[in-house]
Amino acid sequence: MLLLHRAMVSGLRQACRLRSTPSRLCIQACSTNDSFQPQRPSLTFSGDNSGTGGWRVMGTLLGLGAMLAYHDHRCRAAQESPRIYTKEEVSSHTSPETGIWVTLGYEVFDVTEFVGLHPGGPSKLMLAAGGPLEPFWALYAVHNQSHVRELLAQYKIGELNPEDKVPSTLETSDPYADDPIRHPALKVNSQRPFNAEPPPELLTENYITPNPIFFTRNHLPVPNLDPDTYRLHVVGNPGSKSLSLSLDDLYKFPKHEITVTLQCAGNRRSEMTQVKEVKGLEWRTGAISTARWAGARLCDVLAQAGHKLCETEAHVCFEGLDSDPTGTTYGASIPLARAMDPEAEVLLAYEMNGQPLPRDHGFPVRVVVPGVVGARNVKWLGRVSVEPEESYSHWQRRDYKGFSPSVDWDTVDFDSAPSIQELPVQSAITEPQDGETVQSGEVTIKGYAWSGGGRAVIRVDVSLDGGLTWQAAELDGEEQRPRKAWAWRLWQLQAVVPAGQKELNIVCKAVDDSYNVQPDTVAPIWNLRGVLSNAWHRVHVHVAS
Amino acid sequence: MLLLHRAMVSGLRQACRLRSTPSRLCIQACSTNDSFQPQRPSLTFSGDNSGTGGWRVMGTLLGLGAMLAYHDHRCRAAQESPRIYTKEEVSSHTSPETGIWVTLGYEVFDVTEFVGLHPGGPSKLMLAAGGPLEPFWALYAVHNQSHVRELLAQYKIGELNPEDKVPSTLETSDPYADDPIRHPALKVNSQRPFNAEPPPELLTENYITPNPIFFTRNHLPVPNLDPDTYRLHVVGNPGSKSLSLSLDDLYKFPKHEITVTLQCAGNRRSEMTQVKEVKGLEWRTGAISTARWAGARLCDVLAQAGHKLCETEAHVCFEGLDSDPTGTTYGASIPLARAMDPEAEVLLAYEMNGQPLPRDHGFPVRVVVPGVVGARNVKWLGRVSVEPEESYSHWQRRDYKGFSPSVDWDTVDFDSAPSIQELPVQSAITEPQDGETVQSGEVTIKGYAWSGGGRAVIRVDVSLDGGLTWQAAELDGEEQRPRKAWAWRLWQLQAVVPAGQKELNIVCKAVDDSYNVQPDTVAPIWNLRGVLSNAWHRVHVHVAS
Repeated sequence: MLLLHRAMVSGLRQACRLRSTPSRLCIQACSTNDSFQPQRPSLTFSGDNSGTGGWRVMGTLLGLGAMLAYHDHRCRAAQESPRIYTKEEVSSHTSPETGIWVTLGYEVFDVTEFVGLHPGGPSKLMLAAGGPLEPFWALYAVHNQSHVRELLAQYKIGELNPEDKVPSTLETSDPYADDPIRHPALKVNSQRPFNAEPPPELLTENYITPNPIFFTRNHLPVPNLDPDTYRLHVVGNPGSKSLSLSLDDLYKFPKHEITVTLQCAGNRRSEMTQVKEVKGLEWRTGAISTARWAGARLCDVLAQAGHKLCETEAHVCFEGLDSDPTGTTYGASIPLARAMDPEAEVLLAYEMNGQPLPRDHGFPVRVVVPGVVGARNVKWLGRVSVEPEESYSHWQRRDYKGFSPSVDWDTVDFDSAPSIQELPVQSAITEPQDGETVQSGEVTIKGYAWSGGGRAVIRVDVSLDGGLTWQAAELDGEEQRPRKAWAWRLWQLQAVVPAGQKELNIVCKAVDDSYNVQPDTVAPIWNLRGVLSNAWHRVHVHVAS
Repeated sequence: MLLLHRAMVSGLRQACRLRSTPSRLCIQACSTNDSFQPQRPSLTFSGDNSGTGGWRVMGTLLGLGAMLAYHDHRCRAAQESPRIYTKEEVSSHTSPETGIWVTLGYEVFDVTEFVGLHPGGPSKLMLAAGGPLEPFWALYAVHNQSHVRELLAQYKIGELNPEDKVPSTLETSDPYADDPIRHPALKVNSQRPFNAEPPPELLTENYITPNPIFFTRNHLPVPNLDPDTYRLHVVGNPGSKSLSLSLDDLYKFPKHEITVTLQCAGNRRSEMTQVKEVKGLEWRTGAISTARWAGARLCDVLAQAGHKLCETEAHVCFEGLDSDPTGTTYGASIPLARAMDPEAEVLLAYEMNGQPLPRDHGFPVRVVVPGVVGARNVKWLGRVSVEPEESYSHWQRRDYKGFSPSVDWDTVDFDSAPSIQELPVQSAITEPQDGETVQSGEVTIKGYAWSGGGRAVIRVDVSLDGGLTWQAAELDGEEQRPRKAWAWRLWQLQAVVPAGQKELNIVCKAVDDSYNVQPDTVAPIWNLRGVLSNAWHRVHVHVAS
């Protein structure tokens, strides 16, 4: 995006030079120069840009004329005593028909005409439609430059009512009343408990997912824990003392930091629903995110409580401090062998991307189990114990398990399937999106790929024709360590759109270093809970003629 | 098979009782009792058998009449001075049209009429058609009983020419001249080097594959090594002495014994060939077998040579003592991390199913790397070293790698793909076979399932309708240890054949404990070397009307 942004700015500067006037470009709050008549740049213009970027700059410049003419009218409107709008009024302007409004601070902007020119793409700006820009600008530091603010100023149409407060829709008797404020870009699948995913166009924008848009999978209300009084109870091995660890105690263990992708077992469930109804939240492709986690290694903490690896199978059970009105807390377990293996790098994490954990992600301490389904990465961790059996939690024993497509709610035997631990190989397309129209000529396809158990993604194959022919995508992001490939690879492919093609059936599939692949179709892996949805990801797009 | 055999014997005894004569049943070499008129057993007979076994016994008994009448004629023929046959003559009798002949010792039998009555099924007896029974009876000890020999005696038609020697087709100048004699049941894909697989009907007959029919994948002639002078050279870590280990030296390390399934990367390649030509041996479903291996742990031997796990990536390189005329030996490597991990249980094996390794399987010492492709399980091991890079062997760097279906021999870049180590989840149907006719009513479907990397098979789904509907099969064989599921599961399903169905498209697919699944179809995983062929296995059968 940065690159495109530079191209845009460069395009604007070029446009100024073409006009051969002092390049103020009506960029301060307002210019009243009525004689300002934008001029189409010469088609011989090439600038510094070449190759695939060139036509975009050209597109930007072609649109610039309309934009500059339009801004002129707006500038004059805003110069009069500012019109006052309520937040409700702003929030109703979210489409080309109503106009697309955004706010920054107390100022209100109508960016309807700018959306198509947004260097990061229209869809990203649309995420902010009807609300404040700040949460998005906080994610993308590129906006925090004076020329961006100057550009925006042209679209000012008024100001917010200074007495307008954030409307509270939460009742105090509501167990979720104390849930934190969330980032407006998140696509909410459920408010109570809060479950939300970043939209595809933001998901793979960064290798490390910014904390505010990291997918959130809560099972219960978010507890509000006091870091000063917080204690983690670690049940000792027979003959050893149990531990009651404050945050400061945890900080004393060697700090271990790793990049880990977490994925919900239900990621891409919405595709299973299309085959046949399932029980579960309608996650699209965004129930997966990547962060840099830091904390104490679980093996170090267990060792201090006297635990050792034993010959017989055992499990480390985790209890969260989130609970329902009956006092039932979230819980899960992992095998002791994984917990005690220093190479498995299981963390009791207190930092996420260099910050204390956000409340939605387990403040002050959560478990991070690299390569293992999100459900075992227990948040708001209260208690750790070693048991001969798996956790008796509902979520360990009666949920998060895979079954044959033939099993329904009348025949399911939850004891017959193992709890999901390591996840299978996965990939998805984040750009373009299903139903979009892409330009002819060349199309950029982007996405993510990841596999469980520390298995590295070694290849992503992409097809434009529904899987008849394939091209290997370019893998971006951090090269992963052997056997410890805990984080995803982002990938992209610049592909030629076959001439005359009116639509594309874009498909991706990943291969991990055990050469496991994704299944072709969803129906044969359909299961009543809609988990483990990792068939080829498909998007259907139209080609602009 | 044992069960069926007992049923058969029980059926014979019942038949005797029905005749209410002293039960000699003309079972000694010959009876001349011309008045012996076999009688159809009453249809009210039920015996000790019930359920699904019942109809088989009934079928056996119904056939018994014809068999007993027929044997009478044969007995008389054989009583005269025995007719002499050459081995060539015998070997030309392998079908119902020519007659089906077998030998035991010097005796020749025409078992044409018995084939349909064989308790283990006709197809298994047909494996011996035209040749000796001994190799098969050696596999299935159930035959070594007097009543079986008595039964066989009825079919004697003559004897082998005592001067008839095994014809030697091997020239002494042939580098393969010294290759061992192989079991005739093996389906040979290549004689030089020798590559062969057990037929499906034998493959899943036993959880542990008998040594003589364990699939054989040789890249070069089989070396003939003297166990007394054999030495394994283990290059020492800098500062440590190298080791030159005799077999006795190896025996002094703690003996470690594990059941491990080995699979060739090319197993099921023949299905890829059907999509598009590939380079490689035409393995069907039998390039996989399971044995109980015993030997020294590689980590113990490496430790004695001063090796430790190091922070930087390193590899343990293996060199075989098999070589081509230019002196090039077979070689391969595995990551040091796996080699040094006691939990990975990598063996320097000197025993296979309680016997010294057969020559074809690496006598006197081979590597066994549980969960890893056969190609790294180097046979006739001569040298072990720890290197910063993978083995420079052709078979490590220019073979045994997977590529996108779009890569052909003009575009392949072998350096772009990792060497195959852990294999993906796999399963195949061994009964019924493609093209067979099955009875209406109920069909028994059998097969194997396995996954690489110690991942356990947790479920096998079977479909009779090409993948539209599924039933979970019953998993047999040894329950595997968590994270150390080195051996396959056999599985079977008794399925009702839908009434009126004229054919079945039987499909199987397995799921491992990382919930990885097999891909639906072959074409999207096609690769130019035809490796990693693990799509759903499909057999098409006809239903008898």
